[in-house]
Formats: sequence, C-alpha cells, structure tokens
Amino acid sequence: MIIQYAEQVAAALLERKESLAVAESSTGGLILSLLTDVPGASAWLRGGLVAYTNDAKRTLLHVPDDVLSVHGAVSAEAALAMARGAQRLFSATWALGETGVAGPQTGRRSAKPAGLTFIAISGGTGGAPLERTRQIVLPHPGDRVATKQAFAEAALDLLLEALRNPPS
Amino acid sequence: MIIQYAEQVAAALLERKESLAVAESSTGGLILSLLTDVPGASAWLRGGLVAYTNDAKRTLLHVPDDVLSVHGAVSAEAALAMARGAQRLFSATWALGETGVAGPQTGRRSAKPAGLTFIAISGGTGGAPLERTRQIVLPHPGDRVATKQAFAEAALDLLLEALRNPPS
Repeated sequence: MIIQYAEQVAAALLERKESLAVAESSTGGLILSLLTDVPGASAWLRGGLVAYTNDAKRTLLHVPDDVLSVHGAVSAEAALAMARGAQRLFSATWALGETGVAGPQTGRRSAKPAGLTFIAISGGTGGAPLERTRQIVLPHPGDRVATKQAFAEAALDLLLEALRNPPS
Repeated sequence: MIIQYAEQVAAALLERKESLAVAESSTGGLILSLLTDVPGASAWLRGGLVAYTNDAKRTLLHVPDDVLSVHGAVSAEAALAMARGAQRLFSATWALGETGVAGPQTGRRSAKPAGLTFIAISGGTGGAPLERTRQIVLPHPGDRVATKQAFAEAALDLLLEALRNPPS
C-alpha cells in the first residue's frame, strides 16, 4: 500500500526533473527506506538525515535554538526548520521534515502524546517557494511500528499534494 | 527475524551505556528504521545519514576525494570513511557505514554488481578504537527490497560481533 505513495512521489519528481531530501525524527529512517525501495531512486533522492537528538537537529539541520526552547522539538515550527535544513544540506528541490512521538511512551520532556507528529515540506522552484506543515494525531497509537508507518504515509501524502499542486 | 538483531544491538548498547550513529547508502534508511523500531531507541541512537550521492558522502560525511576516485563509492574504504564520518558528526561511541548496490541494475558508473555491499564499523571507547570492514556478496540478488534487508541484517550482525567482543 504505502510503497504506492513512494512510487507516485518518484514518478512526480522524475517528470518534474526535481530532487528530494528528508529529515526524520520519530519515523527514524522509515520515510527514506520506503523511498529507496523504489528502483532508480538515486535519480531523484539526494539523501536525508535522521536527527534523533536535539543536538543533531540544532547542529546538523540548523533548527534554531528558540524553536526548540519555545515550541519544542515536536512542533510544526521544528518540522519546518528541519525540512528547510535538509533542503539546504542536500541541495534538493524539495524536502520533507518530520518530528513526532512514536511511542509507546509519551515524549520524555513534554506532554506531547504518542501518536502525535508534525510534518513539513519546504521546496518549489525559482521564485515560487512553497512551505506547508500538517499536524497528525493518531486516534489509537500503541504499536510503535504501525505508528511509524502511519506517520510516514502522512508525510508522503503531504508531499504528493504539493507535487501535484505546485505554486503557479 | 531482523528486529531481533536490532533488539540485541539495543540491549548491548544500553548495557555498555554507549551510543550509535549510522551512515547508509544502498540500504537507504532501512538500518536506521529497523533500529528505531525498538522502543526507547532514543536512549542509545544518536541518528544517522542517508548519503545517496557522492556529494553527500564527500561534504557531509567527509569521505576523502581520493577514496571515491581510486576505490569508488562502493568500496570497503568508502564504507569505513562513512562510518568514521557518522561517528564524528553525531558524537557517537559507535558508527556503522554501508555502501553497496541494491539493484536490480548494476552500479551506473562501475562494474560493481547488484547484491554487493561493503559494511564498516568505527568505534570503541577510550584508547582502544576498533575499525572493521566486511564485504557481502548475495548469490541471487534481484529483489531490491530483499537485498536491502539482507544488507541491513549483515550490518547489524557485524556491529553485534564488535559489541560482544570489544577490544580489551
């Protein structure tokens, strides 16, 4: 099922001759792994980063300190900063950012519940940049692997929407 | 099956109070995704990088130019340089590096066949650094997803060996 999302992303990027990078937190590499299940992914995927610590988000993806201290690592602002960071780091046309709580426990330093994630895209060509964020709340989280799958599916879905309706 | 490898890595790192980072090429995030399937992975996993392009290997993981030009991106030397780069980038006790050809086609710029990968670990504590590389050749590659799984399993196996028999 979810491989179909990745294949659709691949087809859209190939057609547009554009590239992608990914910055993941709670999906932990699953988005990248799904994308690289598609043969020929190296034609459009630049790479990505799994930033499991705040330090990695800050130093490698350049997520601003005040985003982490004011909004927290699990926030729309952090997801967008991660996407922007990955886009720049990998010189990609588009980038996805994801940060959430896969569970089964809630986030350690906050009241953010398992099953909550924020997804962001940053991209677009030339003078028409596009940025979008989306919050996902799973009604019945619990299974960590299934939660990661649902988060990854939502992320690919958000990207597909943008690729199909780019800024004019 | 393969989740058991990840759980054993988790148990060994927790017991040793040590951390891990991963740099992947042809496994494309699968090693990281398997590791983050284990609940509580943030206690020992710092993060990782999927470097699908030579540029990313060079600029983000500091794989030397001459390694890429002399040995190629799919080589033991490149895998080891990727592991060293990830270890430094994420300030981790241990790091895994992986670079291979997932197929189904052979590598574009070389005679490296699908089903070939090189895995490296870099790590260890204090004055006893440990570096190991291993070449894997799958007898019957073809299915890209299964090839990625076999590569990831071999990588976790190499790491487990090192964690169980660290340099004294």
